[in-house]
Amino acid sequence: MNKNVKKVVLAYSGGLDTSIILKWLQTTYGAEVVTFTADLGQGEELEPARKKAQLLGIKDENIFIEDLREEFVRDYVFPMFRANAVYEGQYLLGTSIARPLIAKKQIEIAEKVGADAVSHGATGKGNDQVRFELGYYALKPDITIIAPWREWDLRSREQLIAFAEQHQIPIAKDKRGEAPFSVDANLLHASSEGKVLEDPAQEVPDYVYSRTIDPEAAPNQPTYITIDFEKGDAVAIDGMKMSPATLLAKLNELGRANGIGRLDLVENRFVGMKSRGMYETPGGTILLVAHRGIEQITLDRGAAHLKDELMPKYAELIYNGFWFSPEREMLQAAIDQSQRYVTGQVRLKLYKGNVILVGRDSEYSLYDQDLVTFEEGAVAYDHRDAAGFIKLNALRLRTLGQRRKKLGL
Amino acid sequence: MNKNVKKVVLAYSGGLDTSIILKWLQTTYGAEVVTFTADLGQGEELEPARKKAQLLGIKDENIFIEDLREEFVRDYVFPMFRANAVYEGQYLLGTSIARPLIAKKQIEIAEKVGADAVSHGATGKGNDQVRFELGYYALKPDITIIAPWREWDLRSREQLIAFAEQHQIPIAKDKRGEAPFSVDANLLHASSEGKVLEDPAQEVPDYVYSRTIDPEAAPNQPTYITIDFEKGDAVAIDGMKMSPATLLAKLNELGRANGIGRLDLVENRFVGMKSRGMYETPGGTILLVAHRGIEQITLDRGAAHLKDELMPKYAELIYNGFWFSPEREMLQAAIDQSQRYVTGQVRLKLYKGNVILVGRDSEYSLYDQDLVTFEEGAVAYDHRDAAGFIKLNALRLRTLGQRRKKLGL
Amino acid sequence: MNKNVKKVVLAYSGGLDTSIILKWLQTTYGAEVVTFTADLGQGEELEPARKKAQLLGIKDENIFIEDLREEFVRDYVFPMFRANAVYEGQYLLGTSIARPLIAKKQIEIAEKVGADAVSHGATGKGNDQVRFELGYYALKPDITIIAPWREWDLRSREQLIAFAEQHQIPIAKDKRGEAPFSVDANLLHASSEGKVLEDPAQEVPDYVYSRTIDPEAAPNQPTYITIDFEKGDAVAIDGMKMSPATLLAKLNELGRANGIGRLDLVENRFVGMKSRGMYETPGGTILLVAHRGIEQITLDRGAAHLKDELMPKYAELIYNGFWFSPEREMLQAAIDQSQRYVTGQVRLKLYKGNVILVGRDSEYSLYDQDLVTFEEGAVAYDHRDAAGFIKLNALRLRTLGQRRKKLGL
Amino acid sequence: MNKNVKKVVLAYSGGLDTSIILKWLQTTYGAEVVTFTADLGQGEELEPARKKAQLLGIKDENIFIEDLREEFVRDYVFPMFRANAVYEGQYLLGTSIARPLIAKKQIEIAEKVGADAVSHGATGKGNDQVRFELGYYALKPDITIIAPWREWDLRSREQLIAFAEQHQIPIAKDKRGEAPFSVDANLLHASSEGKVLEDPAQEVPDYVYSRTIDPEAAPNQPTYITIDFEKGDAVAIDGMKMSPATLLAKLNELGRANGIGRLDLVENRFVGMKSRGMYETPGGTILLVAHRGIEQITLDRGAAHLKDELMPKYAELIYNGFWFSPEREMLQAAIDQSQRYVTGQVRLKLYKGNVILVGRDSEYSLYDQDLVTFEEGAVAYDHRDAAGFIKLNALRLRTLGQRRKKLGL
Repeated sequence: MNKNVKKVVLAYSGGLDTSIILKWLQTTYGAEVVTFTADLGQGEELEPARKKAQLLGIKDENIFIEDLREEFVRDYVFPMFRANAVYEGQYLLGTSIARPLIAKKQIEIAEKVGADAVSHGATGKGNDQVRFELGYYALKPDITIIAPWREWDLRSREQLIAFAEQHQIPIAKDKRGEAPFSVDANLLHASSEGKVLEDPAQEVPDYVYSRTIDPEAAPNQPTYITIDFEKGDAVAIDGMKMSPATLLAKLNELGRANGIGRLDLVENRFVGMKSRGMYETPGGTILLVAHRGIEQITLDRGAAHLKDELMPKYAELIYNGFWFSPEREMLQAAIDQSQRYVTGQVRLKLYKGNVILVGRDSEYSLYDQDLVTFEEGAVAYDHRDAAGFIKLNALRLRTLGQRRKKLGL
Repeated sequence: MNKNVKKVVLAYSGGLDTSIILKWLQTTYGAEVVTFTADLGQGEELEPARKKAQLLGIKDENIFIEDLREEFVRDYVFPMFRANAVYEGQYLLGTSIARPLIAKKQIEIAEKVGADAVSHGATGKGNDQVRFELGYYALKPDITIIAPWREWDLRSREQLIAFAEQHQIPIAKDKRGEAPFSVDANLLHASSEGKVLEDPAQEVPDYVYSRTIDPEAAPNQPTYITIDFEKGDAVAIDGMKMSPATLLAKLNELGRANGIGRLDLVENRFVGMKSRGMYETPGGTILLVAHRGIEQITLDRGAAHLKDELMPKYAELIYNGFWFSPEREMLQAAIDQSQRYVTGQVRLKLYKGNVILVGRDSEYSLYDQDLVTFEEGAVAYDHRDAAGFIKLNALRLRTLGQRRKKLGL
Repeated sequence: MNKNVKKVVLAYSGGLDTSIILKWLQTTYGAEVVTFTADLGQGEELEPARKKAQLLGIKDENIFIEDLREEFVRDYVFPMFRANAVYEGQYLLGTSIARPLIAKKQIEIAEKVGADAVSHGATGKGNDQVRFELGYYALKPDITIIAPWREWDLRSREQLIAFAEQHQIPIAKDKRGEAPFSVDANLLHASSEGKVLEDPAQEVPDYVYSRTIDPEAAPNQPTYITIDFEKGDAVAIDGMKMSPATLLAKLNELGRANGIGRLDLVENRFVGMKSRGMYETPGGTILLVAHRGIEQITLDRGAAHLKDELMPKYAELIYNGFWFSPEREMLQAAIDQSQRYVTGQVRLKLYKGNVILVGRDSEYSLYDQDLVTFEEGAVAYDHRDAAGFIKLNALRLRTLGQRRKKLGL
Repeated sequence: MNKNVKKVVLAYSGGLDTSIILKWLQTTYGAEVVTFTADLGQGEELEPARKKAQLLGIKDENIFIEDLREEFVRDYVFPMFRANAVYEGQYLLGTSIARPLIAKKQIEIAEKVGADAVSHGATGKGNDQVRFELGYYALKPDITIIAPWREWDLRSREQLIAFAEQHQIPIAKDKRGEAPFSVDANLLHASSEGKVLEDPAQEVPDYVYSRTIDPEAAPNQPTYITIDFEKGDAVAIDGMKMSPATLLAKLNELGRANGIGRLDLVENRFVGMKSRGMYETPGGTILLVAHRGIEQITLDRGAAHLKDELMPKYAELIYNGFWFSPEREMLQAAIDQSQRYVTGQVRLKLYKGNVILVGRDSEYSLYDQDLVTFEEGAVAYDHRDAAGFIKLNALRLRTLGQRRKKLGL
């Protein structure tokens, strides 16, 4: 523990836990605390966080509150969706992708206010501590990082509450007991894990879901929508142009109403153990289907297959917290290179948990029948070419067969 | 065209097209035709094929009819599902995986009856010609292959019908016109393509589907099932042990009833163009979710991520027809090696097109809380280890940051 | 064969074979022939080619001669060396990388002179036909391609000679018999294959080599040189700045004199068979060692390992002729992204076939001791961090071990 | 630090450092120390280690000495060479591959003698601590690991010497000062790092090399040898069958005499920093060239290219210490699957640092001219097939070209 910390920028939500951390930083380190509260679309008001910070003795010039929703979707969510990234075949990386942006902003504030440390409220068993701290270190290698959950000796909910009471931190009634599960949320998703979810053999109870209605409760009539893409990014819904965050919020509404985007997953954490989580990514789930749909007609096979091969590594990098790494940037360069003509429109049917691609169209379509006709009056495709194509593809297999036969293998 | 063919083994469905081919082989090559008709679960009776072959003058000893359903699922479908194989992110390879088995059987028959050639009814624009012929060549490198669609000069539906009439081939009434789409089917799936499906902007008409009911018409109550796995393969439904083909057929029923497994896809063919297809894979869609579910708790992260990285290449090999290739066998060896303890049970909820994993359990679970406690009275995971873990993972990123700072990059 | 060809751009070397092709195009197609002769550093004068073309009746405005050495090295060789590309672990792709440039120039000339066809002198069994033609098609999809070796019925050396004599094509004395091997050469390499090289069990005879002296005949004293790199490309030798082609030529001299860059290889051709070739890549061999050397200190591990993983696919694409493909461009984008700070100097020792890296230095070095010290008076690396790093990396392996133990596996 | 350790198995070399560790374990932990000394071909006598252990008070039944050379080469080195594994393009993994075997033996002894801990002499900054400890944990998840270099407060050479003197540990005269570099050695290689090697711009001084003579001092006449392979493993030199360790020792002799296998490398450690090392792998360098040589004619392209793609990951796993991991075992299964017919003979020329493949032969050769002829009197390869092959490979590129042209992109 580095006691010489003078000023620390804390990722502060305004909730009980980060309020305790705030107080603990003041009392343990004697450090001046700077709070940073971001709107990433988690669905909470930010002004109460300001009030709470003031109440806990933070000076006004040390309270930073920022609406990051557009930056989040434009510079983090959308680039990631260009890659069709899913971790372990299923997880849309909703938590992972928000961490680097928060880390980046904390470091910017630290540079601005001359802080020598940063702090976050992630626990010592999870992935988020890694994501925050790899971000901090990458952007400011000489920063001091304080991870209270790994340092303090508050070992139980009771001790936390006692610490809060001792330091006059207001405690909402429903925060006195153990939460039945823990939650993370932003404009891309909400996730829950822990406690009632810990037995992976048991179905997730319905009250855990907050972003989507139950598919069974969704409308009996399907909803049809169109999404327009430009260079790999969604730009309009039903013909209406929208900013990135507005668009994702709109997709979330559509997804919520149709019971779309629930995922029950046992995943492998970077820190080495398996955990069971529940994710709701209503808009993101729609977006993935839509993006794959527009790629179907605008992306060449070579590009499409290379993207599919690179994707698992790309997703793993984001999951593990390596957003600000040279290899993620290399992969991004390759992916972005492929998206120049991923422009056009898809039509989707949303129905009780299903996202069904029903049509796609693009002026850049490689499917267009005209395209495969190269000369007037001539067909581009000659059936007889297939014979030669097959013969040469078969040549090495025939050679192997001949060896097997000759040697009786 | 090699006119010296004496005896040819034809993949014969009993339908109009392969009957025309049969006759064309007799008349063009003067060759003795041996028919091979397989039950792969396409849902048609085989005895009419025997009758039709007899009618077209095939001697009884030259008519081979075989029920391959168990072999198909056990030795082709299941090994492929161990890999969680999907082509271009979505297609479950239902057509692709059947071709190597048919090719293998034709070659076995050719060896048995002393035939010098094989023939199939796949067209010159599709993938199936490649899959059949790569299989033939790999297994018998000196075989002669006759691909009538690439050779004959029957250029239109009218000419085909005329040829049929001329040779007394019976023509069902509904076969006189152009089919509105073409179909392939086996125990794993049914697919349709062509004609009414050719505009990828237009929704697939409902009458194209044959294996599944419309999700909207599916029951309002979800169906819960369990599937048991042993070493990566499904072995029981709701606790009832079943043979591979029986099990897949049962999953198909469940999938059909709940509107599961429809896919509308524009895909990239190996022969170079894009095509739009409609696939129904009811049982396979359930199986994929179930297999991923049991892997979540029984597979280590290293194995799971390696599988995800290898999968696109594996799927591409099967799609392109390279089942009988050394590289597919190498990948299969790696995949099978990982499945030793993929044993346990998953619980699924089927509801109007959705396959929802709601629970998984296994005596081989790596999730089990007991497992992560290594010593009596001691916890296996020390929060403070995370600090060192992060510090060393960050070291190279900090070095990069230091360079950036030092040089003002 | 498309007889309606009016004007054809031929890749013309001025040698006997392409002179025969020139005449054959005139006589068979009745087409106007446009010759294109490029200096890619093959080491032959170009003016004789002009004279020969004139002699064979080509009009002056139809004779195109261009010095492409700088473009070749700058836009093809150097980008490829940024990737450390080697095919099948060893081949430096000297022939492969020249073909796309020639194809591009032929297409440019075809556009300029209004030609409807292009032609080349590559045989029907090799890779070069593929590389030329994929280039032509990618750049001008409606072009007609004439590949005489696949079309004509000149089946033997004698027939070729007879055709030449019949059409007054001058024949050098040493061209009357079969060549003991065939050769390709450019500024990057010379290769030989065929005839005396066809038995892969037999050592390559010394007279086959043309670009390098025998290591045994090389000087007994080593030669030390330095190479400077900027952003991944070599820019100076021994402190002397040089243009790309000048630099490569200088490395070739150094390599030649020290017996560097010979390779005897049995490789797998894209068209399906194995072939045995002999390659001499003196300068390229030095360049590869040098580039890896400067990357050792300027490239981060994440970038370096990703490059190593992508390289085999990148090399395969170039070998197979897919330079002008979206997936090669995607990989190039990723590779180039990594080279921003691959700037600095390496020192090499050249000695009788060996290229030995003896030193590297860079202002962008990530090795620099100062860099790994982040704070004054403090070391950046704490031994104790390693314990946590190992513990968390081991966690999943311990869990596997615990399962094994518990279940007696 | 876990003070409750009762019995600890130490990887003991008999040298000064591990003798100090031995004493430190006794005095700090009060633990009974069991020594394990292995002959991995490092080139030192083992009996002095026994004597020294006895002198330091180790009971005879607690001294374990084992000759592991054959097991090392057969079960670790050879499987790795089947993969043609090189780390970062160059390093033959000589240190990395020995660690898992030592770890395995220590754990076996721990089980046998009922020890509750293991210990090693690797420092806290290197890779070896990771390799040892991942091995220990994988094989015995509840083991206690003592890593003295990370725990004790002996901070300098002087303190170590003082500790040794205080505990009557004999100190050889040349060990009193700082070593000019540190060394690791086994039958596969010797490596040096640290001190005089720390400036990567400076050439490695000649006195650092111990396993090879300077290429300049090597014989002026080349040495020709043959190596026979069976299923991917070398089994004979010049026709003389040898056990794995004998064979590798013989190759080392040949390599040493001809100045083969020196490598000066700046590499990226798993723990995050770059280090500069010098490696000598005389026999291994020959073996790699030889194995690639026999694979050239016995391995199909598909298998060969897949191996090349998988190799970087496989090498990284070994370098990072994940020998006993499911993903390494999966890759090994794939690699071993490919080696069934990698049987035959290669001929090599060794000359002043060069290993030159001059011939390869095999009854399993896929190069054999006869193999590519499938029918009597008929050639297997038809030039005209190439046209179709190219046309279909070009189809998607032409479609892209058509789009570019149509839209003026």
